[in-house]
Amino acid sequence: MTPSAATPITLDDVLAARERLSTYLAPTPLRSHPALDAAVPGLTLLVKHENVQPTGSFKVRNGVATITALSAAERSRGVVGATTGNHGLGLAFAGRQLGVPVTICVPRGNNPEKNAALRAWGATVIEEGDDYEGAVAVAQRLVESEGRTLAHSTNNVNVLAGAGTMTLEIHEQLGTTDSLDALIIAIGGGSQAVGALTVARAVRPGLRVIGVQAAGAPAAHDGWHARAPRSTERAATFAEGVATRATYPLTFPALLDGLTDFITVTDAEIADAVRTILSTTHHLVEGAGAMGFAAASKLAPSLQGQRVGIIFCGGNMDTAVLRRILNHEL
Amino acid sequence: MTPSAATPITLDDVLAARERLSTYLAPTPLRSHPALDAAVPGLTLLVKHENVQPTGSFKVRNGVATITALSAAERSRGVVGATTGNHGLGLAFAGRQLGVPVTICVPRGNNPEKNAALRAWGATVIEEGDDYEGAVAVAQRLVESEGRTLAHSTNNVNVLAGAGTMTLEIHEQLGTTDSLDALIIAIGGGSQAVGALTVARAVRPGLRVIGVQAAGAPAAHDGWHARAPRSTERAATFAEGVATRATYPLTFPALLDGLTDFITVTDAEIADAVRTILSTTHHLVEGAGAMGFAAASKLAPSLQGQRVGIIFCGGNMDTAVLRRILNHEL
Repeated sequence: MTPSAATPITLDDVLAARERLSTYLAPTPLRSHPALDAAVPGLTLLVKHENVQPTGSFKVRNGVATITALSAAERSRGVVGATTGNHGLGLAFAGRQLGVPVTICVPRGNNPEKNAALRAWGATVIEEGDDYEGAVAVAQRLVESEGRTLAHSTNNVNVLAGAGTMTLEIHEQLGTTDSLDALIIAIGGGSQAVGALTVARAVRPGLRVIGVQAAGAPAAHDGWHARAPRSTERAATFAEGVATRATYPLTFPALLDGLTDFITVTDAEIADAVRTILSTTHHLVEGAGAMGFAAASKLAPSLQGQRVGIIFCGGNMDTAVLRRILNHEL
Repeated sequence: MTPSAATPITLDDVLAARERLSTYLAPTPLRSHPALDAAVPGLTLLVKHENVQPTGSFKVRNGVATITALSAAERSRGVVGATTGNHGLGLAFAGRQLGVPVTICVPRGNNPEKNAALRAWGATVIEEGDDYEGAVAVAQRLVESEGRTLAHSTNNVNVLAGAGTMTLEIHEQLGTTDSLDALIIAIGGGSQAVGALTVARAVRPGLRVIGVQAAGAPAAHDGWHARAPRSTERAATFAEGVATRATYPLTFPALLDGLTDFITVTDAEIADAVRTILSTTHHLVEGAGAMGFAAASKLAPSLQGQRVGIIFCGGNMDTAVLRRILNHEL
């Protein structure tokens, strides 16, 4: 199969990414949590634990897949990213493992705890620009003036292939005896969902992939239902990992083509899911990491009797946000 | 080497336990967390992530090691334990995997969330007796009337051998190139520390093992410094995993013989460590799971320049306690 608008990557791309990742990242667990199952009667959940990745989120797959795909010359000139979150941590981790200089551009006044984490992984942090767009402009300047490679968080085939390795692992962990009816994926830019669709199509054609977005950042969801790209003025959700304001050209056609359903969950539902996951499994997940469970709860009437995969895609919850959630202020 | 009072198990016991565990439990990660290192300047920490075990604590090693060591006849009669915590979850998990009936005796009024978790793993929960001692009496009755095997949380060589598999994994994960100067172990009954001492003596004789207890439950610590067994009236700490009131005959001589140091940390220091671990690594640890880091911080002046292993031994923090910690009420 060759890539197309609806399938920007192939299983071979995912297999190649997995080969490149294998030195740096071990497979994450796929687990049952009986006490979590008890909270959604009638469903059997399987949880993919991306929250236990070395940087606390699946994005490290994308970062390693991106940097390992660069030429020696590109590696020596270094990589630049504009992001303050899990994408940046993934790039920083990959740069540290591979000896590639990584610069992360963040806006002035960015969360100091996040800047410290990026620096701890060895990244150079440039705090400049009034907002995210300003940080992107700084990153672009470094690309032009210093020949660095820009590592986009979504619109890059190596990122999509890296994200696809997660679903490939699920497929292998299930083996030939265990079935899975549906896989629910939280969608920001859509890398993880496109990776899942690519793998499912090739090796588990019966597996339905369902998307979920935050109700406060529904661009891809709205576009999917309207069958056309969308953008929004704001992205209003505490789940910053999925706080995107537009559909992306590289992923949107594939989402349109492949998802069997696409729903939204509110911040209140996400906060409730964080609390339930914490009290039943004692795993800390960030907002995006709780959305699979929130969606499974919402879709439970139509998923009765089914085996449903959900992803704890990240665990990097700010302490202050967690505190508000536990105090029922979110 | 044969077992003695000071070495109740041998490396061969640990190797045999590891063989029995291998079908049910994958090795847990041993990781660096640069942002956590930054919080204790001068030390390089290596974190053993027992908090990501299927039941959220290292005790699952002990439970699987205990039940896999039973004869077929013993397995069919079932196992009984008196505990409401991680030991019970470990037994319940092992029983579910091996098809062995597990009964956990808890006192009336026990935390309903914990009872639910035990039942979710398939254990029968008997809520009877006014306190822990009452639950022990119920368990003893089941041993006598039904021929069940009592699974003690500490005073059992299979438990010690199971706990030792953790240090064996650390040894293998370090390999021949990575060194480790000291390993800090939180001590309740002492199974993990005795396991560590057994493995260290056999394969890493230069590794110092340091014990840490909660200042509110210091029986083993006080006994170690007095060179004689001790018991206390109360065990006053929110770190319930180490809230023991006495030294144990099977482990105390080995602790006396092998630990190079033994300190205490206060509940305030443990709570502070929980917060630091959460904000730098985003791993949720329970009180006992934070004590290695609390001790490393306290001992930092004497550990400068050293590579120090700490254990996130469990992650099963009650939501209500976590909330108090984040609100700085603990």
